[in-house]
Amino acid sequence: MAMGGNVKMFDYNKKLQYPINIKKKNLKFAKALVTQYGGPEGELGAAIRYLNQRYTMPDDKGKALLTDVGTEELGHVEMICAMYSQLTKGATIEEMKNAGLDVNYANHGMGTYPTNGDGVAWSSMYFSTTGDPLADLSEDMAAEEKARAVYEHLMDLTDDTDILMPLEWLRQREIVHFQRFKELYDEYKKKAIL
Amino acid sequence: MAMGGNVKMFDYNKKLQYPINIKKKNLKFAKALVTQYGGPEGELGAAIRYLNQRYTMPDDKGKALLTDVGTEELGHVEMICAMYSQLTKGATIEEMKNAGLDVNYANHGMGTYPTNGDGVAWSSMYFSTTGDPLADLSEDMAAEEKARAVYEHLMDLTDDTDILMPLEWLRQREIVHFQRFKELYDEYKKKAIL
Amino acid sequence: MAMGGNVKMFDYNKKLQYPINIKKKNLKFAKALVTQYGGPEGELGAAIRYLNQRYTMPDDKGKALLTDVGTEELGHVEMICAMYSQLTKGATIEEMKNAGLDVNYANHGMGTYPTNGDGVAWSSMYFSTTGDPLADLSEDMAAEEKARAVYEHLMDLTDDTDILMPLEWLRQREIVHFQRFKELYDEYKKKAIL
Amino acid sequence: MAMGGNVKMFDYNKKLQYPINIKKKNLKFAKALVTQYGGPEGELGAAIRYLNQRYTMPDDKGKALLTDVGTEELGHVEMICAMYSQLTKGATIEEMKNAGLDVNYANHGMGTYPTNGDGVAWSSMYFSTTGDPLADLSEDMAAEEKARAVYEHLMDLTDDTDILMPLEWLRQREIVHFQRFKELYDEYKKKAIL
Amino acid sequence: MAMGGNVKMFDYNKKLQYPINIKKKNLKFAKALVTQYGGPEGELGAAIRYLNQRYTMPDDKGKALLTDVGTEELGHVEMICAMYSQLTKGATIEEMKNAGLDVNYANHGMGTYPTNGDGVAWSSMYFSTTGDPLADLSEDMAAEEKARAVYEHLMDLTDDTDILMPLEWLRQREIVHFQRFKELYDEYKKKAIL
Amino acid sequence: MAMGGNVKMFDYNKKLQYPINIKKKNLKFAKALVTQYGGPEGELGAAIRYLNQRYTMPDDKGKALLTDVGTEELGHVEMICAMYSQLTKGATIEEMKNAGLDVNYANHGMGTYPTNGDGVAWSSMYFSTTGDPLADLSEDMAAEEKARAVYEHLMDLTDDTDILMPLEWLRQREIVHFQRFKELYDEYKKKAIL
Repeated sequence: MAMGGNVKMFDYNKKLQYPINIKKKNLKFAKALVTQYGGPEGELGAAIRYLNQRYTMPDDKGKALLTDVGTEELGHVEMICAMYSQLTKGATIEEMKNAGLDVNYANHGMGTYPTNGDGVAWSSMYFSTTGDPLADLSEDMAAEEKARAVYEHLMDLTDDTDILMPLEWLRQREIVHFQRFKELYDEYKKKAIL
Repeated sequence: MAMGGNVKMFDYNKKLQYPINIKKKNLKFAKALVTQYGGPEGELGAAIRYLNQRYTMPDDKGKALLTDVGTEELGHVEMICAMYSQLTKGATIEEMKNAGLDVNYANHGMGTYPTNGDGVAWSSMYFSTTGDPLADLSEDMAAEEKARAVYEHLMDLTDDTDILMPLEWLRQREIVHFQRFKELYDEYKKKAIL
Repeated sequence: MAMGGNVKMFDYNKKLQYPINIKKKNLKFAKALVTQYGGPEGELGAAIRYLNQRYTMPDDKGKALLTDVGTEELGHVEMICAMYSQLTKGATIEEMKNAGLDVNYANHGMGTYPTNGDGVAWSSMYFSTTGDPLADLSEDMAAEEKARAVYEHLMDLTDDTDILMPLEWLRQREIVHFQRFKELYDEYKKKAIL
Repeated sequence: MAMGGNVKMFDYNKKLQYPINIKKKNLKFAKALVTQYGGPEGELGAAIRYLNQRYTMPDDKGKALLTDVGTEELGHVEMICAMYSQLTKGATIEEMKNAGLDVNYANHGMGTYPTNGDGVAWSSMYFSTTGDPLADLSEDMAAEEKARAVYEHLMDLTDDTDILMPLEWLRQREIVHFQRFKELYDEYKKKAIL
Repeated sequence: MAMGGNVKMFDYNKKLQYPINIKKKNLKFAKALVTQYGGPEGELGAAIRYLNQRYTMPDDKGKALLTDVGTEELGHVEMICAMYSQLTKGATIEEMKNAGLDVNYANHGMGTYPTNGDGVAWSSMYFSTTGDPLADLSEDMAAEEKARAVYEHLMDLTDDTDILMPLEWLRQREIVHFQRFKELYDEYKKKAIL
Repeated sequence: MAMGGNVKMFDYNKKLQYPINIKKKNLKFAKALVTQYGGPEGELGAAIRYLNQRYTMPDDKGKALLTDVGTEELGHVEMICAMYSQLTKGATIEEMKNAGLDVNYANHGMGTYPTNGDGVAWSSMYFSTTGDPLADLSEDMAAEEKARAVYEHLMDLTDDTDILMPLEWLRQREIVHFQRFKELYDEYKKKAIL
């Protein structure tokens, strides 16, 4: 019997898409940054949304685009988590308390956890799948616009270039993804493929 | 500047770990199966749990184990979604209605969506991360035991071998993962590495 | 002191925008229809989303558009509730049970309640407000596309013209709203007003 | 065919029931005030509760009361949002951070959003509809008592009369609504109309 | 050092307050009944609400009443769970499937679980605590009225006297509790003790 | 007819298992402590989990163990609430505001409420019941390990021995419970009783 055997569907490469080298602890920023992990416009939700919506795209091109972007977003989750780890590395209890992270420490120690930054767990209520390609792609375009806006808000909150550079890179990726979704949306709309 | 460039953190291989070839539509079973996608003991939650808990494992061995199992679970998500697609393929509206999937059709058309089978969206409330390696690994062991139990329940609900075989394969993987988590848990407990 | 006094901000006119005259009980359809009241793409969420996002629109035109559409959606909530009432009017307990509405009856008697049709309460997690006009308008366009798709799914589930006509009317309104949001989005994008 | 045409069910009048003229920024108070928008005893929930419960009131008087109070509460939502806008108007990023609103800024910029003040989205789990008029009216009486209590708590948190005056006015409305619900409850109980 | 030692705060007596002897399996009714375990007006929520609100009652009488009723409700949870167990005892997989309990079986096997009957987990969002005795007691009165209404709905769904008798007994307890809460509410209101 | 009459299933003894005598107000600590009331690894969830899982334990020994530990956890809920009350006793509004408890005060006054410390209500999503004794006991073991970890985190946040002593006592109880669950798990696994 032919089996996939040891070949896994997803391979993991120990290399971030864009390097994260944050040298200065910043616990308050870490708390806000978490929303791009597990908040309404965060990378976890983006990855799950796109990987979930693939199944009802009308052709291979659509399926491939969603697989490609969804898989890339899984790597962005890692970037955000790496940033969080570096921003909190070596923090003392006193520093955690001063930054308003006491509750976070009680629940998760020095661990990460996907919330909106206010301690609200991520939920798939944050995304939709209607099975209608135009509707789903319009949600995807909106998701990218909203993620861009949140990255801009986060960039307003700091002037540390070690933080700003990866955030700007991530922001640019959202714009690229928006463009790719828009092209497919326009193509489907024209072809009336649906 | 050295960048990750086009190398993504996760690569996607278009090949399921275990083949899914379901020849007979079964909408009622599809509805129940969804819980192993987005339910409390489902594969989506497993993947996110392990990938999330990595950051506070005390050594490379722990991080590697969680990365490895978490990445495999992402592929299991695909298997469950592939099963769902095949179980519902070509279903008519009448068949969807008869199987009690009217609401599902209204919300998602023929698409998949991560719920507990009763329409409740997946939430990261389903898993914990305490940042304490023994506590987190004990949760992981429990997660594998519970997923095993749910696969056994699902297998009770059908006698179609096209369904039973991949479910049995997935069930076996849970047992293997449990064993791997248990070995690390025992090792950490002995070493008092914490 | 000048006060608003008896002038309320919202006035209620006892007249549906489009007439609802359903002559045939249809409990199963009623259960599915509920999602357009309190589901992810439903009218309640639409109303609250637009009325909420007004405050950060950059000019009076943007504020007026969101007020106008949001207020109209409040009336669409009423239409859906009126349809639900007529679809369930005079139902016996036996009929409720046969349609799978036992749990609904236990919790709500013959009352309506805003859920996704599967008993999941409406949550504002279903919509976002980033405070960025382009991002918020792109969400609004997506919301209208998704609501259109759900109305089409609902229309697939019945052939009763008393139901189909108001659903088609509502579906058309989503298309009109999409167009209005798109025009403003395009205008803002061009002006780089942000 | 007779249609409602351009007549909307709800009309919007650009005039608050009670004037809001807050001259002093107060971000910390704004954060707490949000609970009367989207918290458990807030105005959004009140409006939706009453408008939802109308359908199973046993007579026109009951339906009219719930429509009337529900419609008024929609206007109170606007008052709370207007207060929030004025309390945060012109705030700098530094001020937002100092007030603990960094996460709020990341997610919503300067926008409002219906939460309990701690970032938890509003949910219709906050209210019930049993379809039993006495039970539903007793919930409504309780809702008004609880909203009154929260307004009193909020008034304890500030001594700015620009804030205190509209809060006191809103608090008085809760007392009036409680009284109106109580009268109907007593009447229904006496008549054993149910 | 004086310690509570083996004396636990709560003692468990293996004896239901009212006997449950259901002789006939009824899976559909069991599914609906679950809402009085973990639904919005269920016994679990009642117990937690009253036990939680005790701390801000203004005198010993208030604290004692809430302790007393809250502790009784813990026993009612047991009654509902006992009913569920008897209603589902010995059910075959085929019977579970026919009653629409496939998803329940997948997730929980033959176990109980606190939901609203539609698979939605219990949440403390279902109850409030304002710390204001009049507001909290008015919520308690409403809770008892609503639970009464749900028991009446459940009684409409069956004519098995083995089920009807304990439900009627529970319904009567709600009426008694309502009366006790009302007396205290009236007393506090008169004394202006607050 | 033989009735349980006045004998309630649960008796309440006005005596904490371990004395709580906190002499120094500590509002920030109180805020974090709340998670052991209504957070993911808190005492409320523990009590409900064990009391809920009893029904599918395969023998009296299993049922008795879960009843016993579940009932003890109800008393631990009381200990946490007593600690919260003492930690906040006599706090002024100014002190509440300085400790970041403004929102808490707005919603709950000086009352307690079961959340994760960040204002997120407790949900039974936090625990599972699969009806499989080995799976359920493995969850119980994990729950005790995780609660132990959270108590250790809380103990890191203070050096007040009045707080540390009861927390250490509670932590020890988790270890004892873990051991008892493990013994039964090992016994069931050996006997292959399932």
